[in-house]
Amino acid sequence: MSSIISIEDIFREYLKDSQLDEINRILCGKELKKLQIPDPVSDLIIEKGYDIQGYVFEAKEEQLRPKRIVRVGLIQNKIAAETSEPVAAQREAIYKKLGTFIDCAGQCGVNILCLQEVWPMPFAFYTREKSPWCEFAESAEDGPTTNFLKPLCKRHNMVIVSPILEKDEKEVMWNTAVIIDNHGNVLGKHRKNHISRVADLDESMYYVEGDTGHPVFETEFGKIAVNVSFGRHHPLNWMMFAINGAEIVFNPCATVKESSEHLWRIEARNAAIANHYFTCAINRIRIERYPRDFTPGEGLKARNESGQFYGSSYITAPDGTRTPGLSRVQDGLLVAELDLNLNRQISDSWGFKMTERLPMYVEALKKSLQSDYEPQIIKSSIV
Amino acid sequence: MSSIISIEDIFREYLKDSQLDEINRILCGKELKKLQIPDPVSDLIIEKGYDIQGYVFEAKEEQLRPKRIVRVGLIQNKIAAETSEPVAAQREAIYKKLGTFIDCAGQCGVNILCLQEVWPMPFAFYTREKSPWCEFAESAEDGPTTNFLKPLCKRHNMVIVSPILEKDEKEVMWNTAVIIDNHGNVLGKHRKNHISRVADLDESMYYVEGDTGHPVFETEFGKIAVNVSFGRHHPLNWMMFAINGAEIVFNPCATVKESSEHLWRIEARNAAIANHYFTCAINRIRIERYPRDFTPGEGLKARNESGQFYGSSYITAPDGTRTPGLSRVQDGLLVAELDLNLNRQISDSWGFKMTERLPMYVEALKKSLQSDYEPQIIKSSIV
Repeated sequence: MSSIISIEDIFREYLKDSQLDEINRILCGKELKKLQIPDPVSDLIIEKGYDIQGYVFEAKEEQLRPKRIVRVGLIQNKIAAETSEPVAAQREAIYKKLGTFIDCAGQCGVNILCLQEVWPMPFAFYTREKSPWCEFAESAEDGPTTNFLKPLCKRHNMVIVSPILEKDEKEVMWNTAVIIDNHGNVLGKHRKNHISRVADLDESMYYVEGDTGHPVFETEFGKIAVNVSFGRHHPLNWMMFAINGAEIVFNPCATVKESSEHLWRIEARNAAIANHYFTCAINRIRIERYPRDFTPGEGLKARNESGQFYGSSYITAPDGTRTPGLSRVQDGLLVAELDLNLNRQISDSWGFKMTERLPMYVEALKKSLQSDYEPQIIKSSIV
Repeated sequence: MSSIISIEDIFREYLKDSQLDEINRILCGKELKKLQIPDPVSDLIIEKGYDIQGYVFEAKEEQLRPKRIVRVGLIQNKIAAETSEPVAAQREAIYKKLGTFIDCAGQCGVNILCLQEVWPMPFAFYTREKSPWCEFAESAEDGPTTNFLKPLCKRHNMVIVSPILEKDEKEVMWNTAVIIDNHGNVLGKHRKNHISRVADLDESMYYVEGDTGHPVFETEFGKIAVNVSFGRHHPLNWMMFAINGAEIVFNPCATVKESSEHLWRIEARNAAIANHYFTCAINRIRIERYPRDFTPGEGLKARNESGQFYGSSYITAPDGTRTPGLSRVQDGLLVAELDLNLNRQISDSWGFKMTERLPMYVEALKKSLQSDYEPQIIKSSIV
């Protein structure tokens, strides 16, 4: 039933206006203004059959602070060549495709752009094969992907969050987001903290849990962090980025319909609400096909394809309002203008940092790790 | 626009079957079987204009464990008398109304029933008045409400989670859930851990943060816990109940359209997903009117009514599948049959407890509390 392009399209087509307003309010929060996309970009993207959407998250005027406006962009895309092509050819094809896409983002005035998880390659970790996929691994600091992006960052005065398969100088691999600043310099990197060990996707045979903590990158446009993929399931991962001061947390993912589509609208959005910051969730699109069969998960026959990546990339504000999702099946660019003042306004309003009782939890969690921990269980004295 | 009774009704009326299936899958997860409600109950409830819904959450057959079936019930209701009535009369009216409701739950075979937050009274904490509302406060162990419920628990062999305004022997008030077991004995109580200090609702002038930790109550039907109301915004609250072994966490709330309806479908559901347990979220319904005007929140004129409690009570399984919500505007009873084996099955499958890296977070959170904590911020060395 991949014929559904987006839930929002169906609602628009079949629901009456007043119903649509109410359903959108309940499901998505406040109505967002549309952001004007420049005609040449819009034309190009529509010509290619891609999806492009733009929104504005507004905040209240304040008396003492000026607005803090930043434009973010998310790109979701299908791979650009067959996985049976030579590694170099696959990489060239994806660079070419994304180069155009990134130029579009630049023309939309995007200040901070995030690409999808390990964007320069197919998400080959489903295959259980090491070769040739590990050949895509590269240096975060001066690998081909970082070197490809540096001039684009400079040209568009744009920070790019570039999730890649990293291989370090000790030949250890990591699932890493590289942050390249708007001057074309590598600002730093963050290695994925939580690694999927699920039946259809055991990533731990390719790379292990990240050792970079919870860094927040202070860019000229705002303080950003990256919760890579599976870390979205872990509330403490989200929380530590907030503690370190993140204003926008990007969550580049590669996740398929069969396992997670019904969770997709929940986790990154909950994180924005709980932590008083913006979250940006990105997913791949389409099925990726491989040369050989592999185990696709619980009780299924071996096959040569991934599940269906369902796109649906979206952005949530700290007040819980979210954009519609990008298409479930098309390449797409989502642009949003954020006023970062909203973070503190929502924190002032809901005040979860004031009511969270962190010292109590640190103590309780510490105790729970002791080998002689007795869970707080209350039983009937009669039983 | 309170004319929308539920999102699900609108979808059923306006969407085509195939679209409805896909939208439900994406928004709610797997399709649930309907649970048969006994005719006399169904007739009575429909006659009163209430909503009643029943669902079954199934789990896979296992080889070594028998199924662990439990039936839970949630009741959402409007108050039963004007708030200008004498306290005793208001209480008698709500006891009478809920008595009938609880009998219905009993006839549906409910093993564990949860009522809405401070169910024996209007949610008067919006008013900023202490009198007469504090007169509703009572002993958890042998106050009128507990004594009213004990015989009902015994009659229906049913555990009842009874959220009340507690006043202890030192005259301190708490927002407390009392757990009365199926033999009519008080198994224990839990005091709300996180207290709202929001503009329209400063509960901290009535009661303060609970001192009962994160107890899990081992009933004959399963291990349960209660995350009272505002605690739903705090992921660590949810997590501690999981650490202590909760299989079902009830979340009785009183929250209004204007502040939270767009968050309602997110938080309790995220908790079920993140913690591999069932969550049951309950909300009041309708506007509650008071004798005198009070501050209704940011920038609004004083008035004598609460916002609109929007019902929409629902249950989520650990695989993220959820029931439809009860009505936004009607009293209602939601019954669901759960197979608690699903918790471990989902934990085996997703394995978040295996990938959560709790020792790292305990260390990181502990450091973050130190007065000389330096957030992990990476700045450009050039700036």
